[in-house]
Amino acid sequence: MPILTAESLRTVALEIFKAAGVPVDEARLVSERLVNANLDGYDSHGIIRVLQYVKGIREGKIKPGVKVEVLRETPTTALLDGRLGFGQVVATVAMKKAIEKAEVNAVGVVCAMNCNHVGRLSDYTLMASKRGMIGISFVNTICMVAPYGGMERRIGTCPMSFAFPTDEEIPFVIDIATSICAEGKIRVKSHEGRDLPYECIVDKEGRLTRNPNALYEGGAILPMGGEVGYKGFSLGLAVEVLGGILSGTGYSYSKKFRGGNGVFMEAIKVEAFMELEEFKREVGELARAVRSSKPRPGFKSIMTPGEIEYKTRKRRLREGIHVPEKTWAEIVKVARELGVEMEKFMESNPRIP
Amino acid sequence: MPILTAESLRTVALEIFKAAGVPVDEARLVSERLVNANLDGYDSHGIIRVLQYVKGIREGKIKPGVKVEVLRETPTTALLDGRLGFGQVVATVAMKKAIEKAEVNAVGVVCAMNCNHVGRLSDYTLMASKRGMIGISFVNTICMVAPYGGMERRIGTCPMSFAFPTDEEIPFVIDIATSICAEGKIRVKSHEGRDLPYECIVDKEGRLTRNPNALYEGGAILPMGGEVGYKGFSLGLAVEVLGGILSGTGYSYSKKFRGGNGVFMEAIKVEAFMELEEFKREVGELARAVRSSKPRPGFKSIMTPGEIEYKTRKRRLREGIHVPEKTWAEIVKVARELGVEMEKFMESNPRIP
Repeated sequence: MPILTAESLRTVALEIFKAAGVPVDEARLVSERLVNANLDGYDSHGIIRVLQYVKGIREGKIKPGVKVEVLRETPTTALLDGRLGFGQVVATVAMKKAIEKAEVNAVGVVCAMNCNHVGRLSDYTLMASKRGMIGISFVNTICMVAPYGGMERRIGTCPMSFAFPTDEEIPFVIDIATSICAEGKIRVKSHEGRDLPYECIVDKEGRLTRNPNALYEGGAILPMGGEVGYKGFSLGLAVEVLGGILSGTGYSYSKKFRGGNGVFMEAIKVEAFMELEEFKREVGELARAVRSSKPRPGFKSIMTPGEIEYKTRKRRLREGIHVPEKTWAEIVKVARELGVEMEKFMESNPRIP
Repeated sequence: MPILTAESLRTVALEIFKAAGVPVDEARLVSERLVNANLDGYDSHGIIRVLQYVKGIREGKIKPGVKVEVLRETPTTALLDGRLGFGQVVATVAMKKAIEKAEVNAVGVVCAMNCNHVGRLSDYTLMASKRGMIGISFVNTICMVAPYGGMERRIGTCPMSFAFPTDEEIPFVIDIATSICAEGKIRVKSHEGRDLPYECIVDKEGRLTRNPNALYEGGAILPMGGEVGYKGFSLGLAVEVLGGILSGTGYSYSKKFRGGNGVFMEAIKVEAFMELEEFKREVGELARAVRSSKPRPGFKSIMTPGEIEYKTRKRRLREGIHVPEKTWAEIVKVARELGVEMEKFMESNPRIP
């Protein structure tokens, strides 16, 4: 399996996107985000997406280089039309705008429609927390989750993210789907021909199952919560409204919804409420207090949200990023089709066969 | 078991609070909120709390009639010191202020410290949704939930609420604890001497159990999510930061935290993003779409968040509110101690023995 440095992977993605006609600033941003996902351990959101995005550009579903349009604006809010640009580009513009507004007016809320897949929400909420602000983000997603007690798809996996400034090097960032698991995990198990670790799916007959293929045979993903799935379902609905309806994207089951993500981004300036250093210290203390709990049998230690990603990143920065043979072969193929010279990456990354 | 009309119960609570020295406007607000909880089916947050609140006043923990102080303020934010007033009073001031700010500046975020128990969050988020705004609220609560994989109490049950304007008579309102269940439900089972319907507790040895008493013998409540309890735990942490730290209350495990609730209230004006009527129609459509899903075996129908409360309220407004014998006896006792004339309630509610 090829092992590449983050730097090399970023360059591969950058060159491919440039060759596919993406303006260099957008190509750099998207490449950065994809490789960040690999570094944090989310390979499903990493370099593999280059293939999907190049396909999206060729089919006209992703329109690189379009200018995000402001449809409505107040000193604290904005509604954006992403005009089918890269999700990462549109969502970055949205969070930047929310931060600028919060810088001046303490709070900023920015929504965006016509936005492709934005990637991981923590990329955006961390933009705010690095600026001494609270970052909040919700996006709705394509419809594949059953309501609590239901057996038909009615809402998306609809993630929520919160990031907070902290005095620790480990980021304090929450990024979770409101479904019992993300679709990516189910797809991986399906490809591996293995069962899911617990019941994540209601099949087309209404039975709960660990069989990942049941999702692709007319089933639906369960909401987060198991016995209390009405809680995950309720939060998923909140995200459908905030990310989907308020942004003009529409809820995922509606005719209006055209794929991608409906975006809600918010930044809140901590200093409107308290001194930033005090806030950071208390957030750090909370993390340390939580880790000090005795683990119960079967667990080695308590981790805070963002900690596993931080540790994975440290390791992968040192040891490189493993790219599955098949994925790498497809990337090389697409690169060659676009006339990208791949030999230099092969040379600088000796563990590429 | 005595059965009273909502009107009578409100008057009983009002007269008791007035006799306990509560100014009439505060007494009216708190009575209204308690009986609302009964009407919606949340008896644990209903009239029974009169006893706890009178005790709180006598012990100086609740200070009726104090003026909420504004510590920091911007056109979009405020930080309040509730000065140990009634939680309902402080939280109502906070949400009113958030709504006023959102009316002018599209968004309002108001936090409050030194605030007693606020009751149900939906009372506040619905204030916003009735005004054509999105209402969001988070409060942290006393520490009794274990981190995911842990066996010691580190965070509160920390609820989240979201309310949205809708074209339906049924409110679209989410109000959930981020723990697997609220402490009230565990207490009820403990009193009844019955097991919980599923494992809600990690006991002091680190074993998962359905025995409600394990909580009061050194155990902790589990976070929402079961197999994916890290999600409920993560959301609980977000609430600890937003409700607890940002408000100056402190996270629930900290020395700074003194009980009650740390309050975060937000209002967002829908019209900053889209026409209110269109928004309401889409929220209503989403609710109807969700209810149209075929239920899976074991479920009769799909309900949206807020629907069961709406139906319970309709029934209880018609049929009256059942108050357990023991609770009623204690209320009558406290009333008599305070010199409240109870005979008239007995007369006007024939089903009181």
